[in-house]
Amino acid sequence: MRRQYISKIIGILLIFLGFSMIFPLLCSLLYQDGTLMAYLISMAITIFSGSALYMVARRTRIEYISPREGMAIVALSWTLIGLFGALPFYFGDACPAFTDAFFESVSGFTTTGSSILTNIEGVSKSLLFWRSLIQWLGGMGIIVLSLAILPFLGVGGMQLFKAEVPSPVPDKLSPRLTDSAKILWYVYILISVLQVILLLFGGMSFYDSLCHTLTTMPTGGFSTKNSSVSHYNSAYIDYVIVIFMILAGINFSLHYQMLRGKTLIFWRDSECRFFLLLCLGCSIIIAFNIYGSVYDTAGKAFQYASFQVVSLITTTGYATADYEQWPGLSQILLFICMFIGASAGSTGGGMKCARIMVAFKYCYRELFSLVHPRSVSQIKMNGAVVPFHVVRSIMGFLALYIGIFIICSILVAAMGTDMITAFSAVAACIGNIGPGFGDVGPVDNFSAMPAATKWLLSWCMLLGRLEIYTVIILFVPEFWKK
Amino acid sequence: MRRQYISKIIGILLIFLGFSMIFPLLCSLLYQDGTLMAYLISMAITIFSGSALYMVARRTRIEYISPREGMAIVALSWTLIGLFGALPFYFGDACPAFTDAFFESVSGFTTTGSSILTNIEGVSKSLLFWRSLIQWLGGMGIIVLSLAILPFLGVGGMQLFKAEVPSPVPDKLSPRLTDSAKILWYVYILISVLQVILLLFGGMSFYDSLCHTLTTMPTGGFSTKNSSVSHYNSAYIDYVIVIFMILAGINFSLHYQMLRGKTLIFWRDSECRFFLLLCLGCSIIIAFNIYGSVYDTAGKAFQYASFQVVSLITTTGYATADYEQWPGLSQILLFICMFIGASAGSTGGGMKCARIMVAFKYCYRELFSLVHPRSVSQIKMNGAVVPFHVVRSIMGFLALYIGIFIICSILVAAMGTDMITAFSAVAACIGNIGPGFGDVGPVDNFSAMPAATKWLLSWCMLLGRLEIYTVIILFVPEFWKK
Repeated sequence: MRRQYISKIIGILLIFLGFSMIFPLLCSLLYQDGTLMAYLISMAITIFSGSALYMVARRTRIEYISPREGMAIVALSWTLIGLFGALPFYFGDACPAFTDAFFESVSGFTTTGSSILTNIEGVSKSLLFWRSLIQWLGGMGIIVLSLAILPFLGVGGMQLFKAEVPSPVPDKLSPRLTDSAKILWYVYILISVLQVILLLFGGMSFYDSLCHTLTTMPTGGFSTKNSSVSHYNSAYIDYVIVIFMILAGINFSLHYQMLRGKTLIFWRDSECRFFLLLCLGCSIIIAFNIYGSVYDTAGKAFQYASFQVVSLITTTGYATADYEQWPGLSQILLFICMFIGASAGSTGGGMKCARIMVAFKYCYRELFSLVHPRSVSQIKMNGAVVPFHVVRSIMGFLALYIGIFIICSILVAAMGTDMITAFSAVAACIGNIGPGFGDVGPVDNFSAMPAATKWLLSWCMLLGRLEIYTVIILFVPEFWKK
Repeated sequence: MRRQYISKIIGILLIFLGFSMIFPLLCSLLYQDGTLMAYLISMAITIFSGSALYMVARRTRIEYISPREGMAIVALSWTLIGLFGALPFYFGDACPAFTDAFFESVSGFTTTGSSILTNIEGVSKSLLFWRSLIQWLGGMGIIVLSLAILPFLGVGGMQLFKAEVPSPVPDKLSPRLTDSAKILWYVYILISVLQVILLLFGGMSFYDSLCHTLTTMPTGGFSTKNSSVSHYNSAYIDYVIVIFMILAGINFSLHYQMLRGKTLIFWRDSECRFFLLLCLGCSIIIAFNIYGSVYDTAGKAFQYASFQVVSLITTTGYATADYEQWPGLSQILLFICMFIGASAGSTGGGMKCARIMVAFKYCYRELFSLVHPRSVSQIKMNGAVVPFHVVRSIMGFLALYIGIFIICSILVAAMGTDMITAFSAVAACIGNIGPGFGDVGPVDNFSAMPAATKWLLSWCMLLGRLEIYTVIILFVPEFWKK
């Protein structure tokens, strides 16, 4: 473990973070909302700390980063970015307690969208802009992480989802990484611009369009309104957001291929097809389920059903309806969507569709091998055989995901929460979704939780966002041995 | 698939079932409760049907049964026994609807203990005796199934838990099977006799002692009282039942080894140690959690906590308290106990401790291999390496268990049940536990469920009891191809 490497890279990231605070600062100047000082102080602290870390290792040339160092950098950088990103909330008018500021910041950078703000509209505009911006920056980080970094670390079977972007990427973290990253970011920015324009057509103000786009693309879900997207009460806006949530939930290397002219790629890719069919199937079933009992026209039922399904499966977490008032079947489907999550290589969280598909095929293969004990059957995805160690890694990931979900739920309940709230708060945080059921449902938020629970849930968000292994491995003694 | 084999074996089992109805018939004569005719009709139908099946194939000599035939026999026989065992409930004074009678009968034979009877004490004594007896018979079936039949069928990694009873058992179903079975049954009967005696000392009537023993040993949980074991309100009786539930939740081949003088075997066997520590750990945590808020003495708190933990983890399902009134932490631990289940090779249901242990080790191995990518680490249980195909089979089992749990919960909710009730009803049935949470909590029962839900839940009980694969494989098209 070469500490200089870690120090230098995290230093650079923090300096970058510090400078990104210039945007809310400008916003503050524009709206004259009196939070200027908060950004100046936060910027100073962040840039100073980043520079200090950088200076310590300024003479080190970074050439090859080992998988172990890679994991340490990923876990540490996300934690520190969450910590420093909390400063504007703390010095501004949003969170008097640092626990709350940290929770909100981690929820932002991990694109979770769980909030402790009880009156969002009472917070200054520039701070709400910062809150949206950190989700968008977090989303950029995740795309690179899941398509270009984690596959090389061999984490949770992510090898499958390697970005196929600029041709041969050598089997280690290399300067080529920046090429992949740039192309993926162009796509990300392009789609974002498109969404802002379409939302403007729907009659949203530029500020709201921008803020909502900044939280749709990373499947984050922070809104500038107390009642989330339901505030606008517009079918046009709902459907525009649904479409962009779906786009955000698709592997970004498919977007790149799409733009290069492979028009049927969304349907040809088996994970994407599974994801789209799942969105459609659940929306139709829930629309039938709530039609009549909750909404009196089929159109309304489908509008609200599809919005909620897509919002939860892509782990965005916007709300247009209080789904806790819906019938049992709808609730159960939404709860399960929270676990499935979006596609790998997207900005969405959860277990990821591809992993669920591998688990299905794994079970079927087991059944098949009972009938034909001597046959050797392999698991295929998109026509290619999934290597044995990748399958093993995916099954391990799913088991670990469920195991950690259970242990954290027990801990949250031990801090004095009821069973449903504990289960759904942890599911919402590990899956990077945002709202859950019970006391953290779509019309409630996380403010009433005890401070210790907020720290634990912040950790859950990091855990889920960094595909579990990257964080949990820091707790394995072997990791630290030379 | 040789149909004569299946026909002959199921014929024999049904004839045996018919004759076993002589016990409630005698009970009916003793108590003069007016249900004599119900048994005579049921016996006639059952023995006639069994004889017909037997006669069809009377000339077939059964020598070697293939794994596929084995699975078909297991799944079909349990279903038909459930069907014919329902006759006394239907013709007697318990269930006017056949759906209810079938549910109660399957719940009995699978040792689940979920009930549709709203006033148990209003049912005739002989019928309650039959209700207890079928659980005891079911328990006998399960011991043989899980220790002597399933291991040879290669189902769900059960190869691990082969009975080590009479020395070399050839690798196929053979007449030696009867030797293993006999020894295991002696143990089962011996422990049962002991429990009856100890309950008599506690002041229970002979009838109640017998009925409760018949439902403790198979971890069934049917009681002859409306308020289950809490009716007796006796710490002595509670603790006697706790001890026998624990014994019933231990692998029966360990009991055999214990009786042969290996006194420390319960502690030496890693699965049994894990199971005992889990019971103790959860009991202590829950006792702390309910002490003060629900019970005002530590003794009471531990008594009720340990009873409920052991009752749910062994999947017995007796109740001495309404745990839905307990705090969130206690509820969540009990809910998780429902999934873990008892030891493999016991009469308990659930996922089984050994499988959970393998899953833990699987996850740890994955983490370890991220640190040391080139190392080959194997999973060990009790000091021996678990073969690769067994590990694969266990992970497949767990994934299938969770998958089917989710699909069935969606179906139950679709039939008009709320989320919690749907989740916990399916968990209680697949795990062969009995009571759940919500509308099927410890003070409610399954009577209010729609008929279709009762059929689905009956199927879940069979599914869970027969280790999933044995039933689900009948739905795989390859199974039926020549």
